[in-house]
Amino acid sequence: MNTAIDFYLDFSSPYGYLAAMKIEALASKYQRRVCWHPILLGAIFKTTGAQPLPNVPLKGEYAARDFARSARYLGLPFRAPSQFPIPTVTAVRAFYWLQTRDPLRAVDLAKALLHSYFVDDINISQLDGVIQVARTLGIDPDALTAGVNDEAVKAITKQEVETAIARGVFGSPYVIIDGEPFWGADRLEQIAQWLATGGF
Amino acid sequence: MNTAIDFYLDFSSPYGYLAAMKIEALASKYQRRVCWHPILLGAIFKTTGAQPLPNVPLKGEYAARDFARSARYLGLPFRAPSQFPIPTVTAVRAFYWLQTRDPLRAVDLAKALLHSYFVDDINISQLDGVIQVARTLGIDPDALTAGVNDEAVKAITKQEVETAIARGVFGSPYVIIDGEPFWGADRLEQIAQWLATGGF
Repeated sequence: MNTAIDFYLDFSSPYGYLAAMKIEALASKYQRRVCWHPILLGAIFKTTGAQPLPNVPLKGEYAARDFARSARYLGLPFRAPSQFPIPTVTAVRAFYWLQTRDPLRAVDLAKALLHSYFVDDINISQLDGVIQVARTLGIDPDALTAGVNDEAVKAITKQEVETAIARGVFGSPYVIIDGEPFWGADRLEQIAQWLATGGF
Repeated sequence: MNTAIDFYLDFSSPYGYLAAMKIEALASKYQRRVCWHPILLGAIFKTTGAQPLPNVPLKGEYAARDFARSARYLGLPFRAPSQFPIPTVTAVRAFYWLQTRDPLRAVDLAKALLHSYFVDDINISQLDGVIQVARTLGIDPDALTAGVNDEAVKAITKQEVETAIARGVFGSPYVIIDGEPFWGADRLEQIAQWLATGGF
């Protein structure tokens, strides 16, 4: 088995959503697993001084248009969320809690959270929103509530963000393949080429 | 004839260079002309507060790697210039001077300037570098020198930058097709799709 692809994303990142809906099929085509790493861009931006896209003059307005157009280009549903961006620490903790129990289902939860936020306009910033999404996958609300409040789960979340910073992750999505970094949903074609050829 | 594609770029922008080497073939495939608008990103960044990529923590290092990889992906030669980024006001004035005389040759000059800077590592920030490149196209050095010092040419350059700002151009390359903006060399695929389908 080839080494896994590291896939970093923020659950509040539209480009992260777009890449998330494509990365598994792309990886499996080349016999790769995907190791999902939800992160908190807000914490990373504090170290890099970057701003969320909507706050950047001109680029923010362009991005709003580009999110929707890129979704259409990739054949994915997208609706601009009413609240954007949002804090996602609870959603991320829910992911890492489930990952320690059932890694494959944690990926299903990640995709469900992204779809709920970017298609169904469900606000996943608070626990009730995360529970609403998790219920659709048959995840027990009480276990999830205990999980996101578990100190060990909080520590894993913090560690994942710190590791991301140490690896130079500065945006979402950010994919690392055998040490080669790719930033942005618009690098999916280069990722495909890299996987097909082993580097170019 | 369809309306022209507006193509904005900074002569010191690697992604601008990559797009510049592809945009004419792409446009002509769909019976479009390209209207070239060299601009000065430094002046634009003063209004938007943006920083040149090499100055941005983490993103700058990633970008250096991505410039070269994107060039290989697109099948274009690229060598990181010794001096980067550089001021390009003289090169831009040379372009607009020539455009008033011979628009097609002005495009040849733009491509030659970009190739010289990004492949042959010729510093095009000063008049002597611009003259060196222009000579290869048979352009008279004395006429060019007079041209870049012409007040009317300076005014055209200033006006082009101001118009770009007014149109929301915040980066390089920036392409506008029938009112639809596309930022980045990584939007060439979406541009092709847009031209093929009339919008999606």
